[in-house]
Parts: sequence; C-alpha cells; structure tokens
Amino acid sequence: MIISVIGDGSCNNDIYMIAEEAGKLIAEKGGILITGGLGGVMEAASKGAKEAGGTTVGILPGFSREDANRYVDIPVTTGLSHARNIIIARSADALIAISGGYGTLSEIAIAMKLGKPVIGIKTWGNIEGIINVNSPDEAIKKVLELLMSS
Amino acid sequence: MIISVIGDGSCNNDIYMIAEEAGKLIAEKGGILITGGLGGVMEAASKGAKEAGGTTVGILPGFSREDANRYVDIPVTTGLSHARNIIIARSADALIAISGGYGTLSEIAIAMKLGKPVIGIKTWGNIEGIINVNSPDEAIKKVLELLMSS
Amino acid sequence: MIISVIGDGSCNNDIYMIAEEAGKLIAEKGGILITGGLGGVMEAASKGAKEAGGTTVGILPGFSREDANRYVDIPVTTGLSHARNIIIARSADALIAISGGYGTLSEIAIAMKLGKPVIGIKTWGNIEGIINVNSPDEAIKKVLELLMSS
Amino acid sequence: MIISVIGDGSCNNDIYMIAEEAGKLIAEKGGILITGGLGGVMEAASKGAKEAGGTTVGILPGFSREDANRYVDIPVTTGLSHARNIIIARSADALIAISGGYGTLSEIAIAMKLGKPVIGIKTWGNIEGIINVNSPDEAIKKVLELLMSS
Repeated sequence: MIISVIGDGSCNNDIYMIAEEAGKLIAEKGGILITGGLGGVMEAASKGAKEAGGTTVGILPGFSREDANRYVDIPVTTGLSHARNIIIARSADALIAISGGYGTLSEIAIAMKLGKPVIGIKTWGNIEGIINVNSPDEAIKKVLELLMSS
Repeated sequence: MIISVIGDGSCNNDIYMIAEEAGKLIAEKGGILITGGLGGVMEAASKGAKEAGGTTVGILPGFSREDANRYVDIPVTTGLSHARNIIIARSADALIAISGGYGTLSEIAIAMKLGKPVIGIKTWGNIEGIINVNSPDEAIKKVLELLMSS
Repeated sequence: MIISVIGDGSCNNDIYMIAEEAGKLIAEKGGILITGGLGGVMEAASKGAKEAGGTTVGILPGFSREDANRYVDIPVTTGLSHARNIIIARSADALIAISGGYGTLSEIAIAMKLGKPVIGIKTWGNIEGIINVNSPDEAIKKVLELLMSS
Repeated sequence: MIISVIGDGSCNNDIYMIAEEAGKLIAEKGGILITGGLGGVMEAASKGAKEAGGTTVGILPGFSREDANRYVDIPVTTGLSHARNIIIARSADALIAISGGYGTLSEIAIAMKLGKPVIGIKTWGNIEGIINVNSPDEAIKKVLELLMSS
C-alpha cells in the first residue's frame, strides 16, 4: 500500500501537526508514504511516518537530493519541476490532501482523472469527488475502507 | 502570442460551437493556438483557428500523430500521457478553459501555479482565480487586456 | 513530414553551415523542422528552414520563450530540462544528427529505440544503426528514401 | 548513496548473474539500488540487492505496479514510458551499465551529460567516458572510489 500526502511546501503549525499525524498513521498501517519531498506538509508527513518506523519516498521537482527534507528515505530527483506531481498521483493507491494551493489542486485533479481516492482535510472543499474529512484518523480509515473494497 | 484552449475530448454541440468560435478569434488576433490535439473542445478550437487562417499546435499524450484531429498543423507526440497537460500550461501565455473535467482542472491548476491567466467559460466555476466569462468574445477581450497590461 | 535536426547548442562555423543547409533542404521538401530550439546546430537549422519559407518548432528545456533562437516559429516551453529530448525524438519522422555531445547521443538512442531513422553527419560514428553520410544533401535524400519506403 | 544498475529487460544467464552480483554488492555497501523495475538486468540486480538485505527502487515506465519485478520494494509508476530513464539517471549517484541496447544507451548518455560516473560491463564499449570494467566487484570498487573523491 502506497499512500501519498500532498499539500503546501510551507504551512502553519496546525496543518503541520495534522500532516505529521497522517504520516504516522500511514506508517502504522504498514503503508509506504510518498510525497513531493520538500517542506511544510510534505516534511510533516515524512516526519510522522519516519518516526513511526515507516518508509518515506520523496519525488522531488529538482536535480538535487539536498532539496529533500531530512525525513525522506528515498529521494527521487526528477528534474521535471511541477510535472513531478503527476508521478506522485500515478504512484499512490490513494492521496490525502491537507490544505494546499494550486500545486496540490493539480495533484488532486490528476488523481481524480486516474480514478484514485482523494481524501481531503481543510483542502479544496468544493471539488466534486474529494472525500472531505476532519482528521487524519478519519482519513486513514476512509483510505483503508476504500482500498479494501476495490 | 500563444493561447491555449483546454477542455474535454468529447463535448456537446453547444460547447463545440463555443470552442470553435474561441479558436477563430484567437487566429484573427494573430495568436498561435495550442491544445491537447485530440477531439471535442480541442478539435473545435483547432477547426476555428485553422479555418480563420491561424496556426494550430497539438500537444498529444501518445506516440502517434494519427491521434491528432485533422485541424492540427503541428502535432507534437509527447508520449507522456496526461503529463502533457503541463507542457500546454507552460507554453501558453493564457488559457481559455471551456467546460471540462478533471484533466482540464489539472491544466487550470498548473497554469494558476505558474501565474498565467485562466479565462473560464462554463468550466470549474468555483476555483479562486479563474476569470469567468460568458462568451468567446469576452474571453479573448479579457486575454488581450491581461496580456497587454503584463 | 516532421524532421528533427539535433546537435550541440554551440558549434563552429563549419557545423553551423551544414546545419543551416540541412534546415533549408527540409523546408524545401515541405517538411516541418523540429529542434531543441536553442543555439548552435538548433539555431542554424532553424535559420535555414525559416529563410527557405519553412515552419520551425522549438521544444525548449526551460520555461521561458526567450530561450528560443530567433528563427523558431513555434516555441514549446516544456520545463522538463533534458527530458525534452525525448519529445523531439518521439515527434519526428526522422532525425538528422550533426556533430553533438552526450545530449545528442541521448536523442539518437531514444530515436533508435523507437525505430526511427537517424542520419548522422560528423556525429557519433560508432553507434550501430546510425546511417552516416557526408552532406546535408545526402542526408535529406536518405531521409526521403527511408520515409517513402516505410 | 543511490546506485543505478541499467540494462536490458531480458538477458541471458551470464548477464543475469553479473547483474545479480552487482545488486548484492551495492546492498552490502549500504547503497540504495535504483533500476527501471522491469525484468532481465533490472530484475537480477533487484534480486541481488534484496537478498542481501538492501532497498530496491523501481522507476517504472507504465501505470501499473504489477509491471515491477518481485524484488522491487518501492515501485514508482511514472507513466512516462522511456522518459523514465531520465529520472533514473538523475536520481543515481553513479550508474552501472550491464550489457543493454538503445534504451540503456539513452540512460548512459543522460548520465554523462549530467556528469555522473558510468561504469560499464559488457556494454556500449565505444562511448567515450564510460569506465569499462570486467566484473561487478571492480565496478563497485570504481563507484566507491569515484564517489569518495568527489
């Protein structure tokens, strides 16, 4: 099971804690975490997963491994800039979007196009098809429920 | 000036006529039209531009030039699947989104991320930053106005 | 017919004149020229094609149209860095490699992998499958002969 | 340290054993192995690394994780077809090319372009810049020597 957590490269403390908890729960359920590998939501989720003993993959936009946050085990330097968002959406079984701007929206849209579940927490609430929940715990439950039934 | 018209690969007659008119107006203003090169909105816009003497570029998802609609002058076969959407957003000065689903939404989001104007006609109305208008004529006026002032 | 001329972004005068002649001949035969859009061999071929009344496409590595040489009609800003080489190989019916380093070699290899004809002038001579010729004139004759028979 | 082993998707037994040994040695030196994730040389290297307790990443050309050989821990489904070769070259500190055809050659060329060490075993021997060796053992020694000094 590969789960992606997507969101902004910088975020406030509340969002950081939500993303960290999401990463932790993904690792506890035995999932591999895949993110864009940078700061903010991506770092928080990676931190949570890593500290819970999970494996974290960072699909980076640039050419340098130094861009990755320190919790990324497997840095993949794509050099494709934002086009790397598509690889994240393609590689995950399900995506959890936490907050986020237009970059996150592009990943949500690609995931939807591919028919993958997208669970949202405080994110683009008005996009048809996103399953909005209020906590990381609910998000993981929803992910597991959807992946089991598919 | 390179303008993109984005939207679904199949569409109803109303949408087709709107996209065809948009393509025609882009060509009349001297713009190069760039689309995803397939059917529906992409075909309609290409038809309009081509019949008005314009140049049409099709950034195709697959490997075969045969996938292009017949109004594409310059078929670029990327073989990148939906990742080609990003090239369209990156190459255009402005985008006109006409109707459209999740694929179109991903292009809108990438364009927004890059700070490019996105004019919408009967498209994702609830995305902050899209400039919604009611006709191709208004759309082109808006595009010209924005590109002049930038 | 879409023909690519590939080679280094900077080159000496001899190579420039060869590439310019190749571009001219492609345009005279009614072909669309596709290059990487930058300087050197890419510029020379674009100049030749443009001055002979042809259409020139530049598949650029970066995000800015300003990177294109002045003879490019259709600049496509991919933002994919060297990965744009693959789009050139995929979009052309045949490739003419003139001189060139490792970037050119990667395009040659991808074109070979796709089963496309690669004609070489003073390029990587020791790669099995490249058809080596001595002049742009021979190169175009070879391209036409191969495309007619396929 | 991330090391890539590149080569054909199908291979004879001799090449398979060489690639397996290379994978094993990479894992024993604490390296992460990155490959294209498919059969042949990619599978052999992944098997060697996995059985030696290493971590294996597969950068797949398609959309389905089922395409990965069974020794891939981290499957990344890029959906970019051969363009995924570029991600492999960009993500590795050094590449070991074992046998291989035009696809392998494209990876070698991109790696050279990026200034990364490429060690070859029974591969494209006539490309300037490849460091040709005769065994996996020599290859790893060369990789370590080059990465230490850089």
